[in-house]
This record gives sequence, C-alpha cells and structure tokens, in this order.
Amino acid sequence: MSQHKPAIILIAPQMGENIGASARAMCNFGLSELRLVNPRDGWPSDSATANAVGAFDIMSAVEVFDNTAEALKPYHTIYATTARARDMRKPVFTARQAAGDIAEKQTQGLRTAIMFGGERAGLTNEDIALSTNIINIPTNPDFSSLNLAQSVLLIANEIFQDTHDTPAVQTPTGDSAPVTHEELDEMITRLGIELNNHNFFRNPDMKPTMMNNIRTMLTRANLTEQETRTYQGIISALIGNKIK
Amino acid sequence: MSQHKPAIILIAPQMGENIGASARAMCNFGLSELRLVNPRDGWPSDSATANAVGAFDIMSAVEVFDNTAEALKPYHTIYATTARARDMRKPVFTARQAAGDIAEKQTQGLRTAIMFGGERAGLTNEDIALSTNIINIPTNPDFSSLNLAQSVLLIANEIFQDTHDTPAVQTPTGDSAPVTHEELDEMITRLGIELNNHNFFRNPDMKPTMMNNIRTMLTRANLTEQETRTYQGIISALIGNKIK
Repeated sequence: MSQHKPAIILIAPQMGENIGASARAMCNFGLSELRLVNPRDGWPSDSATANAVGAFDIMSAVEVFDNTAEALKPYHTIYATTARARDMRKPVFTARQAAGDIAEKQTQGLRTAIMFGGERAGLTNEDIALSTNIINIPTNPDFSSLNLAQSVLLIANEIFQDTHDTPAVQTPTGDSAPVTHEELDEMITRLGIELNNHNFFRNPDMKPTMMNNIRTMLTRANLTEQETRTYQGIISALIGNKIK
Repeated sequence: MSQHKPAIILIAPQMGENIGASARAMCNFGLSELRLVNPRDGWPSDSATANAVGAFDIMSAVEVFDNTAEALKPYHTIYATTARARDMRKPVFTARQAAGDIAEKQTQGLRTAIMFGGERAGLTNEDIALSTNIINIPTNPDFSSLNLAQSVLLIANEIFQDTHDTPAVQTPTGDSAPVTHEELDEMITRLGIELNNHNFFRNPDMKPTMMNNIRTMLTRANLTEQETRTYQGIISALIGNKIK
C-alpha cells in the first residue's frame, strides 16, 4: 500500500513571502504537496519564489483552487489549524499529537491534509467545519500569535520527528579513537610523578586522596588517544625550562 | 532554589529582522533572556522592533556584548547550535533531547544558555569550543538550511513542550452537554419508526441488522444534547409535507 505524506493547504494566504517561507519549511522536513486556495497576491509570485530559497524546485507542482472544498477532495482525514479554541465539536490535537495521528493514518494508506488560514484571521468556521480534527499549537498565553509559515514549520517539524528515528545523544570522536586504559593510566601516573617532583603535595598524608581526585577528573573526561597525547605534551611543556 | 529559564545568545547576527523574529519566537514559548554579541546592524534597530511585534516589551532588556566569552559568563551549561556535525568532541543533542537536558539543569538551579551563530556561516569553531554541548536539529538532508529565527523557534518550542504538560486530546462540547442514553435512544427509536413508515426496510429480514448499523453509526458520533435535538429536527423536516 502506498504511503502518502500529509499535504499542506493554505486557505486565502495573503503574502507571497509566507507562501514561500511555508514551502521552505515543508522541504526542511520532507513534505512536498502544497495546495493554495485563493492566494490574495496571486500565483506564482516573485516574493514566494524568493522566500522559498529553492524549495519549489524539489516539491511537487503547487496546485491552486478557488474554494476550500475543491482543494480537500482527495483526502481522507483533514486537520484544521486554529490559534484559539472554537466551539466546534471535533477532537483537538497538539501538533505533536496530530503528528502521531497522521503517521497512523499514513500506515493505513490514507491521505491526510493540514489546513492553515490566512495571516489576518485564520480559518473561517465554514472551513473548519470541513475538517475531521483540529490542531492547536500550545504557546505562551501572554504572547501566542504565530506567523503562518512558523505554524507550518512547527507542525512539519513534529511530523518529521514522529516519522524519523531520533538519533541517540552522540559524542563524535573525530579521527581519534577513545584512549585505552593503559595509555590513560600512563599519562596520569606520569602527571603524579611530576606533581610530586614539583612539590604539589605539600601534605604527604593527603597525596593519595588528591591523586584519586585528579584521576577521577581525568577519567570522567572520556578522552581520546589524541587528547591524551595533548595532555602528555602539556605536562612536558610545563616541566620544561622556560625560554630565557 | 530559583529556576532560570535558558537564555538565547545570538553571536554576530546580521539582520535586525532575524533578531526581532527570534525575540518573537522566544516570547511565543515563554523565554525572555536575550543577549547579542556584535550585531552587524547595531542595536537597537527598527527592523528588529518591527519583526518582534511587541516581544521586546515583555522580555528582559536585551544585553549586548562585544565578545562571546563575555556574554557567556553567568551560565553553567552552554549549548551551541550547529547545522552540520563538527569534529569536536562534545555531546550532540537533538533539540528535543536538549530540552530535556535543560529542564534537568533548571531543576538543579543551574543557568543555561543556547548560542546561535550568524545567518551566513553559523558559529565559529572558537565559539563552539566555549560550549558544553552541541545541538543539531534533524532536518531533511536534501534541504537542510534553517533560518536563524526558525532555529530559535524550534528549540524554544521544544523547551516549552518539555516544561508544560501536554493537554490530552480534547473534544470541546461547547455549551451543550453530552447526550444521555435515554435521549439518544429516543431519537434513534423514532428514526427507526419513521424509516419503517417510509418503506426504508424493503427486506424485513434485514431490518434488525440495518437498525443495528444505524445505531452504531449514531452512537459512535458521541453526540451532544443539542446535536441530538438537531437530528430530531432533521427527522421532523424530512417526514413533513413539502411546501407546495
């Protein structure tokens, strides 16, 4: 069964800039089906192209419609994005919950679409009545206004994260392998000897404890071979004769 | 112990527009501490103010520094945002993982900061070396370039979601309470009687099965009292005499 990624449908968007920025956000997160209903500034537009920074070149061709119902025809499940709760009896999802729901529909072979209203007033109640579910992005209640393209970005990002494995937290080692215990111990042991030679341990009773603390600090740092060699170089430099 | 939300630090941002849009994104998700290092177009700027749509009015005063180390002084844990992996041996988090890590630091009373580089080239290796951890936002590898303010938005959004309870999927009932079984059953029973009167059940043997299907469909819809009354009205209208 073929799987369809969700389409983005902008209803009566005003500024070409926002259509372009929405397309860019879609491509950032692997979406490629964009439909427009009655774009105020027409289609295509130079401002959309400029703000898409190449997104239109890798997407499906944008389709333009003159009413919402026409644009929604092929989809099984339709999500309406709204900034405020409305008294409409439909399930309300956060963007993250919607991403999970969309992924489920996708595995069932269903086509999904997410509608966004224009910059000034969002979707009309008539448009929302055509949807299956509502998406409301939780924001700071004291400063809740999201730009159109930002809303597209946040939802596309959730969809991308839901359908891509999250990489584990990684610590790159670069070109150098992690150090073996042998090499690390050699460096720490040498450091201890040189510290002793330079009267670092003023109280001999404390020496074992202090060496333990130093060993803990250097072991926790999870050094590479290269970094351990750098430490060796630091020790050599510090104990060397100063240039006169 | 007081809890500090993370600070956002923009290093050598170029366009005032992006400083303003970053501030707006911060406020959308409840962050209020913004520091700038060497903003190319100076500070304050009209373009920043225009794009912040009021965000600066509800944030702490923006602080400006002339080098990165100076701007980082008060923070315990510093995250550097990078678009591509670098050969630097530091933990690499996704935005979501970083949000979890930041929340943990916050509960420990530690101050955190997230650094973002300028529009053209991002953070320098020297700036990244000052950080504790790296944040890399996973994107479509074929179209990965995120705008500065969009990166701030995505990370601020993850922080907000991590520290706010996700509301359950909700279906608002509006002003009308869910219908009781009694009223729903009354409506469905009446519908069955009228359908019978109007010869809907051509094959009497199938009547129980068909009524069961109709009942299932109407029960699943999870109707309110008001919607059930609307159905009653629909039945009345459909069985009434047509206007001649």
